[in-house]
Amino acid sequence: MSNQKYGAGIWHFATYVDRYATDGYGPPRSLVEMIDLAGQVDDLSVVDINYPFPGGETSMEKIEEALRRNNLTVIGITPEIYTRRFAKGAFTNPDPGIRRLANEMVNEAANVVRRFNASYVKLWPGQDGWDYPFQVDHRRVWQQSIEGVAELAEQNPDLRFVIEYKPREPRVHMSYDSVARTLLGIEKMGVPNVGILLDFGHSLYGGESPADAAQLAIDHGRLFGMDVNDNLRSWDDDLIAGSVHPIELFEFFYTLRKNKWEGVWQLDQFPFREDSVRAANSAIGFLKGIERALDKLDFEAMQKAQDEHDAVTALKLARDALFTSY
Amino acid sequence: MSNQKYGAGIWHFATYVDRYATDGYGPPRSLVEMIDLAGQVDDLSVVDINYPFPGGETSMEKIEEALRRNNLTVIGITPEIYTRRFAKGAFTNPDPGIRRLANEMVNEAANVVRRFNASYVKLWPGQDGWDYPFQVDHRRVWQQSIEGVAELAEQNPDLRFVIEYKPREPRVHMSYDSVARTLLGIEKMGVPNVGILLDFGHSLYGGESPADAAQLAIDHGRLFGMDVNDNLRSWDDDLIAGSVHPIELFEFFYTLRKNKWEGVWQLDQFPFREDSVRAANSAIGFLKGIERALDKLDFEAMQKAQDEHDAVTALKLARDALFTSY
Amino acid sequence: MSNQKYGAGIWHFATYVDRYATDGYGPPRSLVEMIDLAGQVDDLSVVDINYPFPGGETSMEKIEEALRRNNLTVIGITPEIYTRRFAKGAFTNPDPGIRRLANEMVNEAANVVRRFNASYVKLWPGQDGWDYPFQVDHRRVWQQSIEGVAELAEQNPDLRFVIEYKPREPRVHMSYDSVARTLLGIEKMGVPNVGILLDFGHSLYGGESPADAAQLAIDHGRLFGMDVNDNLRSWDDDLIAGSVHPIELFEFFYTLRKNKWEGVWQLDQFPFREDSVRAANSAIGFLKGIERALDKLDFEAMQKAQDEHDAVTALKLARDALFTSY
Amino acid sequence: MSNQKYGAGIWHFATYVDRYATDGYGPPRSLVEMIDLAGQVDDLSVVDINYPFPGGETSMEKIEEALRRNNLTVIGITPEIYTRRFAKGAFTNPDPGIRRLANEMVNEAANVVRRFNASYVKLWPGQDGWDYPFQVDHRRVWQQSIEGVAELAEQNPDLRFVIEYKPREPRVHMSYDSVARTLLGIEKMGVPNVGILLDFGHSLYGGESPADAAQLAIDHGRLFGMDVNDNLRSWDDDLIAGSVHPIELFEFFYTLRKNKWEGVWQLDQFPFREDSVRAANSAIGFLKGIERALDKLDFEAMQKAQDEHDAVTALKLARDALFTSY
Repeated sequence: MSNQKYGAGIWHFATYVDRYATDGYGPPRSLVEMIDLAGQVDDLSVVDINYPFPGGETSMEKIEEALRRNNLTVIGITPEIYTRRFAKGAFTNPDPGIRRLANEMVNEAANVVRRFNASYVKLWPGQDGWDYPFQVDHRRVWQQSIEGVAELAEQNPDLRFVIEYKPREPRVHMSYDSVARTLLGIEKMGVPNVGILLDFGHSLYGGESPADAAQLAIDHGRLFGMDVNDNLRSWDDDLIAGSVHPIELFEFFYTLRKNKWEGVWQLDQFPFREDSVRAANSAIGFLKGIERALDKLDFEAMQKAQDEHDAVTALKLARDALFTSY
Repeated sequence: MSNQKYGAGIWHFATYVDRYATDGYGPPRSLVEMIDLAGQVDDLSVVDINYPFPGGETSMEKIEEALRRNNLTVIGITPEIYTRRFAKGAFTNPDPGIRRLANEMVNEAANVVRRFNASYVKLWPGQDGWDYPFQVDHRRVWQQSIEGVAELAEQNPDLRFVIEYKPREPRVHMSYDSVARTLLGIEKMGVPNVGILLDFGHSLYGGESPADAAQLAIDHGRLFGMDVNDNLRSWDDDLIAGSVHPIELFEFFYTLRKNKWEGVWQLDQFPFREDSVRAANSAIGFLKGIERALDKLDFEAMQKAQDEHDAVTALKLARDALFTSY
Repeated sequence: MSNQKYGAGIWHFATYVDRYATDGYGPPRSLVEMIDLAGQVDDLSVVDINYPFPGGETSMEKIEEALRRNNLTVIGITPEIYTRRFAKGAFTNPDPGIRRLANEMVNEAANVVRRFNASYVKLWPGQDGWDYPFQVDHRRVWQQSIEGVAELAEQNPDLRFVIEYKPREPRVHMSYDSVARTLLGIEKMGVPNVGILLDFGHSLYGGESPADAAQLAIDHGRLFGMDVNDNLRSWDDDLIAGSVHPIELFEFFYTLRKNKWEGVWQLDQFPFREDSVRAANSAIGFLKGIERALDKLDFEAMQKAQDEHDAVTALKLARDALFTSY
Repeated sequence: MSNQKYGAGIWHFATYVDRYATDGYGPPRSLVEMIDLAGQVDDLSVVDINYPFPGGETSMEKIEEALRRNNLTVIGITPEIYTRRFAKGAFTNPDPGIRRLANEMVNEAANVVRRFNASYVKLWPGQDGWDYPFQVDHRRVWQQSIEGVAELAEQNPDLRFVIEYKPREPRVHMSYDSVARTLLGIEKMGVPNVGILLDFGHSLYGGESPADAAQLAIDHGRLFGMDVNDNLRSWDDDLIAGSVHPIELFEFFYTLRKNKWEGVWQLDQFPFREDSVRAANSAIGFLKGIERALDKLDFEAMQKAQDEHDAVTALKLARDALFTSY
């Protein structure tokens, strides 16, 4: 029987707007409604919650009660450092007042992490970067990206911060764009409590092998969290995990198990047009198949094939496990 | 002196939301405010307006007055067949009731075209397509895409309809995804009053050469309109025209002039974080340089170089004109 | 028991050069050696052979004998209209003498098709297109692309010609770049004996859904052949089929069966660093799993899910069949 | 008058093969012929030469004489660690004997660097990486990538080594794939004599901003060299510099000048179908325009615009300089 814990960003259960469907893909939902939806997923233990809380919710008690009745705990808090006032960046905003606001908001989120006894503050600086050639001083933007996170880590030495890198969107280019760039920045910070939250889809559409990215982050001692989804390799489509790239998804989890990495398997999906509970169950159902496939996979034979760079044998071993464990 | 007319989608002067900055990149603007901004652009004659009118505006008189005081006329009307109720498609929605609604909304838009004495109804079926493998019956989706437009063309034989194709977004894949696919569909319709509105950026990030796409549409007698912007070739960034691909932009306009195609040069930009009047002026300023470069370009020598597929000479001729006409 | 026939381009069993490994990824092989390797694949019935024959082979008898002893027949002949003299194009070469040579070489290939009683002449005009902005007159290039093939079809009304479109490589942009463009060209030709050979990987990295592309070609009565492989969606990697995109591969074959399309399932793989027999067996082994999955798939339920654009159900049905049939 | 030195990889003057035009895009050329062609370029001072020397040339005297008569010196030597025997990698080859061979070949190349008094040994490990999911042990491949280079640096403390990273080709994924990854590896090596040779096109099609990549390498004290070309952002097309992305090319050189980075401006172009002397002159002619544009650019105003992330002003300043300096 599996002991693997599953989680999801609470936004999985929200409705969405985009620049065209400005009236949203469904009526707005309160945070409590989202939590109640999350509770309907067959096997979900933890959630990551945005801060400030969605829908303007302010009662911690109502949230805690909703979590309790749905048997959910909080793994992380994601401060919304990417809304209107941060449109030109949080850590790298040209306006020092906005950079200060970002710092304050993340510090508040840190307090919420403490209150929920969660694992980390998640930083996704989606507006930090640039759109145009010549728009920014690249040295400064990168320095500010590093300093902004380092300052938070030093202000909150009792907490962990995770950076979720992403190549682009909403900025045309984000400064924390890849696993290597993020690790380079973290090394510069020289603090122990900053790591990476690796989003499978971000890695994939950034041209990385997610398995290789995970290995690199692990080898630097910085893989603090992860989540999965899928896409067509050119954009962050946030589709149901395993719907397009089941084999690379399997290789990603193979890498985690090989390294004895333990942690929650989270979803970061945006079911714009799907029922969110069904979309979560679809993903977790497939991930449970991957768990079984990992139990079945011949790790020793795989290592031997990899030692010889023998793609045909490695592929056969992977298929033998994955396509018989659903 | 140039007689070239310039235009823009009125949304160029809106503010935007996306799935992250759900509070928008600025406070909402009324249609009249947008028109007044458009009027501030140095050299703008026409606009394309969404229908239903942005911000819930219902007074035709107020709109006409705003247009008049800004010396603007209407080139086209873009019915919003991509909002919440059309999330699973307008022409291809699985629900026949929604398909009917789409037809009705476009017919209303047709009446607005008549009222404004505009040139066309613009169809941008951004929600018509699919997200996942296996999601749709591809034959049916394509048939409905064709039939939905053909029906409108037949209901309004006095008007022109233009299809603005696009590879993707918001759907992971749009059914009218490319110039060739759209022409194939139009040929099937067998009606004279449906053509293409070619968006330079859509063509570019769809892997086309926009110049080649324009030539193909012209050769089929179906280039009814066009607009420009720029991007990094992997997404519809809607950046300022000429900011990334000035040479291909020049080749695009070279193709129009060579074919004696005459029409408005329109902008389809989304200045999320920029002042919209400055962004429009920046683009039009560059386009005026392209006009001058076309006047200077040695068309005969270019034709000779192209007849020999002589890239080095062709590039030299293009540079000689473009980099000395700003 | 399966009656499905499998095939491969004979180049699957060649060795390769590229612009870096100019000494090749292995010692050159003669055509007879390639055929003998093809014969070692567990379940291969037909091959597609380049013309002029690889390695300068001229004895038809030796080839026929090699085919016979390996129980192979010839499905198609691929004239090499992409070697040095065709570097600037075959049908679109600026030099009319080279265009004539291309026509002659394809006509010779047509005779070889007759001799082998094969199904078609395969046209892959990999050098027809352009590299640079402004390099070519797009109208002319496209007209020549159409006329060159139409002329061949008219010269050989007893034979079928298939065009294998591809977005790019070796040209930066190929003129027959997509399914829709190719169908548009074929419609212009107005001949019955030109169709499409759909390469799954070309479709995938061109941004198409291969299933949708197949449906479109079928609906135009022009799907004359197909082959499969895999890639990372940005280049024609020609990897082992099913190694990256098993679900879209399954959807592709689902579309063929749904339309009762019957024909050989061919491989177009380039095992640069792999044993070619093992690479072929790996692919065909997986394709046999897909055959079984098609037998198991609930087509009626799938149609119903697709009629509702219900991605979650459709994905479940596909997984239920594919991940239990290996 | 400009003091800027220009250079080129000597392969710019070679002819090429690829997997289709296996007979090559022209007759093979000897190294001496290539040098004589390089000498015909209007303003070329240095070349980078492959080792072993192209065409099997062994006489150092003949090479030196050819260089002398063409007024050329050698900036770097590029050992061919990507030919047949290295098909599965040089530093990461599964066979330790091949890894040894790679080390020996590079050490020989180091001696040639000394003989020519050149600036560096250039390492482009194009075969080091992987093609398939599950093919390699990512930890091991990355460790070997680092150790192989570190060993060379320690064996030759008097010389500089530059790594030319690239996302892919010929491998589907190269281990030194990006600026950040390469810097991360170099930091691990802990040696002073390994840096980056930044190829503008590799950076561009890897999704980087080349200007940002240059700044990052400079800030780590590791920008040891660079070369330019152009592409369509999805592959290493090695087109003529400035033919597609003149503005980002300008930003790249702006970044170098702003940082007072001094070094040779090199070309890494592959003129498959063009006259190589004309292709080089076309690029250098444009680069000289960029030099003039840098002289004209208002650096102070640009810094101010960048301090405010003011894209419209920054773009105007860039255009004002670039489009008036040709």
